[in-house]
Amino acid sequence: MKADRTLTELQAAAGNGLLDRRAFFRGGAALAAAMTGYASAPAVAAPLAEDPWSGAPGGAVPAYGVPSRFEKAAVRTLSNPNAEPRTQHARTPHQLLQGSMTPNGLHFVISHAGDPDIDPGAHRLAIHGLVRRPLVYTLDALARYPLVSRMTFLECGGNSAPLFSPSPVQASVQALHGLASCAEWTGVMLSTLLEEAGVDPKARWLIAEGADAPHLSRSVPLGKALDDAMIALYQNGERLMPGNGYPMRLLLPGWEGNMNVKWLRRLKLVEAPAMTYYEARTYAPILPGGKAYQFYFLQEVKSFITHPSPGLALKGAGFYEISGIAYSGNGRISKVMLSADGGASWAQAALQEPVLSKAFTRFRLPWRWNGGPAILQSRAWDEAGNVQPTRAQVVAVRGETAKPPPVTGFPSQHYNGPTSWAVGASGEVKHVYV
Amino acid sequence: MKADRTLTELQAAAGNGLLDRRAFFRGGAALAAAMTGYASAPAVAAPLAEDPWSGAPGGAVPAYGVPSRFEKAAVRTLSNPNAEPRTQHARTPHQLLQGSMTPNGLHFVISHAGDPDIDPGAHRLAIHGLVRRPLVYTLDALARYPLVSRMTFLECGGNSAPLFSPSPVQASVQALHGLASCAEWTGVMLSTLLEEAGVDPKARWLIAEGADAPHLSRSVPLGKALDDAMIALYQNGERLMPGNGYPMRLLLPGWEGNMNVKWLRRLKLVEAPAMTYYEARTYAPILPGGKAYQFYFLQEVKSFITHPSPGLALKGAGFYEISGIAYSGNGRISKVMLSADGGASWAQAALQEPVLSKAFTRFRLPWRWNGGPAILQSRAWDEAGNVQPTRAQVVAVRGETAKPPPVTGFPSQHYNGPTSWAVGASGEVKHVYV
Repeated sequence: MKADRTLTELQAAAGNGLLDRRAFFRGGAALAAAMTGYASAPAVAAPLAEDPWSGAPGGAVPAYGVPSRFEKAAVRTLSNPNAEPRTQHARTPHQLLQGSMTPNGLHFVISHAGDPDIDPGAHRLAIHGLVRRPLVYTLDALARYPLVSRMTFLECGGNSAPLFSPSPVQASVQALHGLASCAEWTGVMLSTLLEEAGVDPKARWLIAEGADAPHLSRSVPLGKALDDAMIALYQNGERLMPGNGYPMRLLLPGWEGNMNVKWLRRLKLVEAPAMTYYEARTYAPILPGGKAYQFYFLQEVKSFITHPSPGLALKGAGFYEISGIAYSGNGRISKVMLSADGGASWAQAALQEPVLSKAFTRFRLPWRWNGGPAILQSRAWDEAGNVQPTRAQVVAVRGETAKPPPVTGFPSQHYNGPTSWAVGASGEVKHVYV
Repeated sequence: MKADRTLTELQAAAGNGLLDRRAFFRGGAALAAAMTGYASAPAVAAPLAEDPWSGAPGGAVPAYGVPSRFEKAAVRTLSNPNAEPRTQHARTPHQLLQGSMTPNGLHFVISHAGDPDIDPGAHRLAIHGLVRRPLVYTLDALARYPLVSRMTFLECGGNSAPLFSPSPVQASVQALHGLASCAEWTGVMLSTLLEEAGVDPKARWLIAEGADAPHLSRSVPLGKALDDAMIALYQNGERLMPGNGYPMRLLLPGWEGNMNVKWLRRLKLVEAPAMTYYEARTYAPILPGGKAYQFYFLQEVKSFITHPSPGLALKGAGFYEISGIAYSGNGRISKVMLSADGGASWAQAALQEPVLSKAFTRFRLPWRWNGGPAILQSRAWDEAGNVQPTRAQVVAVRGETAKPPPVTGFPSQHYNGPTSWAVGASGEVKHVYV
């Protein structure tokens, strides 16, 4: 067959069918030939039938667009849909998304007491404490300051917590890793406002507090506040979503989600951390040695495969694209390696340009599935030289869910090891540990 | 006053208060000092009152997020909200957006017969005509091909048509320039599919046809199809919006909107353009000399100021940020110059990184308004060396609305001259010609 002959033009890059990423850059010829007969098996075109939707005018264009009614599955999964008095989680459906942006309707949300319904005209942001001049800003006032935009990911410290389980939890990539998303944020650099307030030399931290009912508050080192922290006012061009802090939130690029305090109402400059409920209890699990895992800020280098993944079964042997997301709170992703044989051999994935600091980077690699067993895994490096650890390395330091450390709680924070998908002969994808 | 003293640290860059763009890069100190007393005049902080939304739990997080109820004004304006049997236009509210992305709910739409309600499982894309093997693709089949993502703007050829009027139309930037938007699109390179089909050497064009009721069709030169054309399947991460071609559209980066055929159902390779209704009539106005302005593809270098703009009145003298959008179908924006005195003097604006080819680039410049009359204008250059023409230059070639050319119609396409906003002593912003 022609397909068999031309397939040799695509160099194997690692075991079990991983192909060279440069196939993408060489353009269509070899790749298209390789896919023929393996992938889509497109039928010969007959005259196209008229579809029912072509026979009459369509619907009215709405003032605010929403997805097609055929995309009802592309929604966030909700842990507490009736807003009972406990935390609500809304997880991003990575298995149904592509590219590097998360659309605003699908950005993950964690809300400890629901989304407050804030009147932006009445909302205020105060900067006080160890400053020369305490200041209060309205949203209108902030609109006159110089704005900056940046793409950055946000990730809950508890994202991927099921990976601490001693046996692989069978769940979708949305259930496992859905508490991470990426957007373009626009706002005022916090350093500008702190300069205006005049920071007292004694100040070392600031306490950021939200206007939600529990007034979620976290202590932030002053160095981060003066580096790349932003008071974000816009998300992907429009005002922040209610669940993402409308009308303003603190944005600490690369740092764990809950520190990016939503519905931000005040920043108090202080000498020492406040030991708030959320940093002393909720986001401070106990490590195996009994010590609290507290004031860990950075979301470290991480990656996971979104296509294929559980729920997206393969339909017969042949060509597929392996695709996923990599990111690091340390900066740009420098490399992503993929394995189709459970880590025995690795091939370098193509990274979608532009590769931006502290943002989702989409990686892709062509794969020819031979119909036999395969275990897919990704591993990412960042420009600071950090590499995604193995699951064994993470567990050795943080523990496993079934082996609770002596004091209290269980490991649930900052899993950044790999995720492994086993492809069965039926094409079904399962979560496994290797 | 301290503010007066430190203001000298900010160098004037052009007449009537335009400041040096490097104020942004130097960081907060000088800028913050300059703004003090001029801009927000933030009050001294008193103990913050508890707001009503902080006193009780908030609302349920929805499966698909929508903007706050306080953002009802941030919607598209509709030319035909009841979907009467004529074209519908939905315009992007640039005056309420920031950054460089257009969120999916607010991306502009032109629909000549409403949005078809397409079942993605039943939809097909055929490639036929002058090819070795005619092919039909399902959405599932396309999902297995290598995907690429790119940020790119789309602009209707008729965007900014009011600027052809002999006197300045008093309208918002949304009404004047709302038929342009920018998103991250992900899909399959058309070149991959054309390689698979095998292009006959006689083919020079392809006819792209949509599945909407009028089967909108346009002829596309084969060179563009083999260059950067994409069959787009995702918009800002999620599936295309119904108004933007769900489940698939042709994407021709930098080329006029209607050629990016939505609801794409077939591509027929041919020797010569088809002279379809949409290219021979709708998008082919008559030039002053009587010739049809046909087969103009490129959206040329352009910019406009979004902040301030009509409807966004200034509130007293002092510091403001001038901000807007620049883009070119030729590639990257290389420079944007701003004037506050109607073109007598110019200062270079800061460009928000990353500056991407054929994408919106947000430009910004600090401005100290002295409370007197000002006329704000932007002018953009692209990396190919093209510069935005003056309005007089555009009108000389294309005509003016009140002076219809001899044959029929009126000039309405591809206005890419400047837009001028006059700021009055009250702070009100009006559209003027200079």
